[in-house]
Amino acid sequence: MAESWVNYAERIGADLHLELSGSGGRRAALIRALREAVRSGRLAPGTRLPPYRSLAADLGVARNTVADAYAELVAEGWLTARQGSGTRVAMGVPSTPSRQLGRAAPPGAPARVPKKAPPRARGPRHDLRQGTPDASSFPRAAWLTSYRRALQQAPNEAFGPGDPAGRIELREALAEYLARARGVRTEPGRIVICSGFAHALRLLFPAVLRGPLAVESYGLGFHRELLAAASVRTVPLPVDEDGAQVAELGREWGVLLTPAHQFPTGGPLHPERRAAVIDWARARGGVILEDDYDGEFRYDRKPVGAVQGLDPERVIHIGSVSKSLSPALRLGWMALPERYVDAVLAVKGEREAWASVLDQLTLADFLVSGSYDRHVRRMRQRYRGRRDRLVAALAARAPHIEVTGIAAGLHAVLRLPPGTERSTVKAAVWQGVALDGLAEFRHPAAVTAAPDGLVVGYATPAEHAYGAALDALCGVLPPG
Amino acid sequence: MAESWVNYAERIGADLHLELSGSGGRRAALIRALREAVRSGRLAPGTRLPPYRSLAADLGVARNTVADAYAELVAEGWLTARQGSGTRVAMGVPSTPSRQLGRAAPPGAPARVPKKAPPRARGPRHDLRQGTPDASSFPRAAWLTSYRRALQQAPNEAFGPGDPAGRIELREALAEYLARARGVRTEPGRIVICSGFAHALRLLFPAVLRGPLAVESYGLGFHRELLAAASVRTVPLPVDEDGAQVAELGREWGVLLTPAHQFPTGGPLHPERRAAVIDWARARGGVILEDDYDGEFRYDRKPVGAVQGLDPERVIHIGSVSKSLSPALRLGWMALPERYVDAVLAVKGEREAWASVLDQLTLADFLVSGSYDRHVRRMRQRYRGRRDRLVAALAARAPHIEVTGIAAGLHAVLRLPPGTERSTVKAAVWQGVALDGLAEFRHPAAVTAAPDGLVVGYATPAEHAYGAALDALCGVLPPG
Repeated sequence: MAESWVNYAERIGADLHLELSGSGGRRAALIRALREAVRSGRLAPGTRLPPYRSLAADLGVARNTVADAYAELVAEGWLTARQGSGTRVAMGVPSTPSRQLGRAAPPGAPARVPKKAPPRARGPRHDLRQGTPDASSFPRAAWLTSYRRALQQAPNEAFGPGDPAGRIELREALAEYLARARGVRTEPGRIVICSGFAHALRLLFPAVLRGPLAVESYGLGFHRELLAAASVRTVPLPVDEDGAQVAELGREWGVLLTPAHQFPTGGPLHPERRAAVIDWARARGGVILEDDYDGEFRYDRKPVGAVQGLDPERVIHIGSVSKSLSPALRLGWMALPERYVDAVLAVKGEREAWASVLDQLTLADFLVSGSYDRHVRRMRQRYRGRRDRLVAALAARAPHIEVTGIAAGLHAVLRLPPGTERSTVKAAVWQGVALDGLAEFRHPAAVTAAPDGLVVGYATPAEHAYGAALDALCGVLPPG
Repeated sequence: MAESWVNYAERIGADLHLELSGSGGRRAALIRALREAVRSGRLAPGTRLPPYRSLAADLGVARNTVADAYAELVAEGWLTARQGSGTRVAMGVPSTPSRQLGRAAPPGAPARVPKKAPPRARGPRHDLRQGTPDASSFPRAAWLTSYRRALQQAPNEAFGPGDPAGRIELREALAEYLARARGVRTEPGRIVICSGFAHALRLLFPAVLRGPLAVESYGLGFHRELLAAASVRTVPLPVDEDGAQVAELGREWGVLLTPAHQFPTGGPLHPERRAAVIDWARARGGVILEDDYDGEFRYDRKPVGAVQGLDPERVIHIGSVSKSLSPALRLGWMALPERYVDAVLAVKGEREAWASVLDQLTLADFLVSGSYDRHVRRMRQRYRGRRDRLVAALAARAPHIEVTGIAAGLHAVLRLPPGTERSTVKAAVWQGVALDGLAEFRHPAAVTAAPDGLVVGYATPAEHAYGAALDALCGVLPPG
């Protein structure tokens, strides 16, 4: 490499190090910094970027982070990648001379509104990342029907400051739905509406709950980061095909579990372990946080009920519509033990109801009118079909790859030959296939490592794009 | 019909009439009440329900409402309907004796959902507190039109994970609107959507900005509490009829101001002080937080433009629709100096877009289509009318009381004879009039105290209730 990273650092801007050393999303921070460097002309068209390993070493980030960032920017058209010539700044990217707005404009000068929206970020060609439902299947017509009804029937006070617990209509509808669909035992007065699982964690820690908290040794890094930001120490709990090994629980103050479908490895928590973790919580005076992130999507057997139903005073049940409808609604809920309700509401605060009241009323109508059930049924069928196609494609084209965790949810785990995970993920990125390796989800302090594997989300692509995504996936799998 | 509705009313519970007369969803309210009556045993299994028309007439609702409610409860299994024998309470529906959830219920026990929402809190008879707009004037029809259009035109990716900055459609619409209506100089790339002013503070402190922060010696205690929670020390800055005395600024790191209409005392920041605070910020390297909470509601002169227009690199402009439309939408924005954008987005987090995407798209359409301007014009007229009625009522019935801060906004300050503030607020409470004394807003470390006064919000009562509220207010003022 002719130029040292120092030069790049200057061009990319001094903030990058700060950002990377700071908060969540190193990959996102790097993408933003590089994009801005190209946009502003600090990195000129045709400039060659340093190899992953050099930049990764210089920044103190994982090589994958750099590879991901490059791949994303290639997909967005800012960079080009050609075999043999490395990654370069694309030719013909218009740089904006300066985003700087005049500082010394005289008072009363006409307002200038330099309007240049950044080019709309395009995702990878094939998005097999876990975590989001098929955005093309949002039930627009049925949702609009409920919205119209909710808006027309809303009492005037609904447009006032609001109840931090959330609208009573929604809490009533949820209490019934969760009882019926998930076996949750609760009542409207113990439900608090929030903006999703992460918001629930922020409300619970550290004001209401305390650490240390046991978490599954494989899980979302985002959740671990949130807990760390709230000064909650997390202790990894090994997982196997029967979910978390709750017998390993010790003197932790609580445990965060994904009992319906361990995320991401895929096993449901075994019935004996369900009973055992309740026993542990009772004996220890601890609490169980139940992340019921995809409990509605079970394909082969009857749904696995919520652990909360075993002891509503020991379990905080947390769910959202982010998987079942859309993360764009920012609607979730907690079913709380009685003793936490007031404290959670105090943290949430009188003036910060957060979730849109109109969306809350719409969801209440959507639940009560049966539209939610219909939508979940339809999506369950669609996702089951996708799962079956994934399994069939692998059976036909990569029979040596075992698929696990497929009884439920919106993702599967593909077991890979030892030592091939990282190279497979990299190959996938180069082929425009976005997905994650299991290692991505591993708790930094996990004692045992899962075998190599890929986490393949099959919900995100639009229906018409799924076949091509499967083809691309099969094309990057290591040979048998 | 053998039994009269009175018997049913008793069995169904006294809440029903209240619910039906009150809030939205007569059908939902009826369903809830009937379900609760069955569950609690007030309507025993096998009991025959009255025909649609009888119950509809007794309750004053449409026959269809009753028919729908029965049908829903039949579908849920609470009622049975057979031709010839009418609608009856299903046999074998288990009634729950108590609200307490069994803590020791055996695993696998059927889910019980005892439902009893807490009694709905009723507000004071006359609400003259500042802070919320007239909830009865939410523009339902125009908003629904925008919502329908937004929902139909939204690209599929709108239902995906989303951009932490907020929807580009809304940021573009806001950049233009804020330039036109408030003289803000910004661009979509420097706007970050949030859930309101408090959310903006939480995003800015302490990760991005640092204390100590100068604040106006009279202001919202809620904001001071939020800052304290973020470990930001606040230093009070005296206020007079020309707004904050910015000449008193010293080595603080930044200053939080309400330049359009000092909250709550009511003066606009004097033009010389506007220039002076910009000079201070430039010399000091500091930042100005501009809380533009009611800048659109100015009655007697041209609107006072935003301080941000004087130097977009030194001012963070913060606004929301909480006063102009409704706090129930939870939609606000920041127009940021370039150097803060990435850091604020990193704090906001990739996965926590917070504000409902559909509401964001709706507001974008509402702005672009001109509906927002029309609504603000209509409300400005309405609030000016209320202000004029307040002034006239005082001139007629309490001419010794001076009214100030009335050129703008949704509240006025009534100067009281020295030493009468506390007793007047107390008298008001006893008469069912909710309002605040000026002392309520005083910074604990403020050196000088404002004269005694009342902060009277004239936006909250519904139009028909405003006259009675004024009467009640005049009745509690101290004699001249």
